Amino acid sequence: MRILGIDPGYAIVGYGVVDHDRGRNTYIGHGAVTTPAGMPLHLRLMEIHMDVGTLIDKYKPDAVAIEQLFFNTNITTGIQVAQARGVILLACAEKGVPISEYTPLQVKQAVVGYGRAEKRQVMELTRIMLGLSAVPRPDDAADALAIAICHGHTAASQLNQL
Amino acid sequence: MRILGIDPGYAIVGYGVVDHDRGRNTYIGHGAVTTPAGMPLHLRLMEIHMDVGTLIDKYKPDAVAIEQLFFNTNITTGIQVAQARGVILLACAEKGVPISEYTPLQVKQAVVGYGRAEKRQVMELTRIMLGLSAVPRPDDAADALAIAICHGHTAASQLNQL
Repeated sequence: MRILGIDPGYAIVGYGVVDHDRGRNTYIGHGAVTTPAGMPLHLRLMEIHMDVGTLIDKYKPDAVAIEQLFFNTNITTGIQVAQARGVILLACAEKGVPISEYTPLQVKQAVVGYGRAEKRQVMELTRIMLGLSAVPRPDDAADALAIAICHGHTAASQLNQL
Repeated sequence: MRILGIDPGYAIVGYGVVDHDRGRNTYIGHGAVTTPAGMPLHLRLMEIHMDVGTLIDKYKPDAVAIEQLFFNTNITTGIQVAQARGVILLACAEKGVPISEYTPLQVKQAVVGYGRAEKRQVMELTRIMLGLSAVPRPDDAADALAIAICHGHTAASQLNQL
């Protein structure tokens, strides 16, 4: 199963692509969709919507895994991120790819084994699980790979329960 | 100038269309895009994106005016509304219609004359300004007509300053 993990944002949308097969993860690719700070929000949304659609066409994932939003810091930024997340979900829906959502806690539990893991631990274990020589850059892409791993892990354990 | 006012939401997107010409407002239409509660969010977003695009094709507005978001009540609902607002902004951007954003305070000031006006006063004055026999239903559509009037008022006063 090919999984496209997405870390939503409006300045940077991190993405990571992983093939999951019976507990084994194979790294396929990662990167980020970025929009410049000076660009009006509606044009940034158009860019993000288009680029995520292009990523789906390119990688043809069987599933998209995306991080859930929590507003514990800046509400204004949070609104912008949620608006960007809306057009990302739209792009997935238009391409007919099923979407799963995970909390940061679920991602940490799936990758490191416990929910209070540090961000750096998650990144380092993501690197090791995918057999990469360095932690992928930017951080948003490393996060997206961790989300993809989390989905593979979760989908596999759900399958075992059947 | 034809203005499409939008009150964003994910269950109900209110809209109202007004022609503004030198301080005079002419009512053109109003209504709501609705999505059922049981529908998965990504499909609701797809429905909203498509329907707002259809509204723009139908009414051919020169401008879209949309309410800014404030999260003072339920954060979870707020995230959903912001995601819906993202696909609404996207539909406007794709159709090339300029977007203006107004706070509830600005709308009240434009329609009633002061920012602390009650919601009912705004609706009643909207009804009178547009020469309607009853306050438009649902409330979201009445709000959208008020936002459209606000944009006409604001755009006209900006023109006067030139």
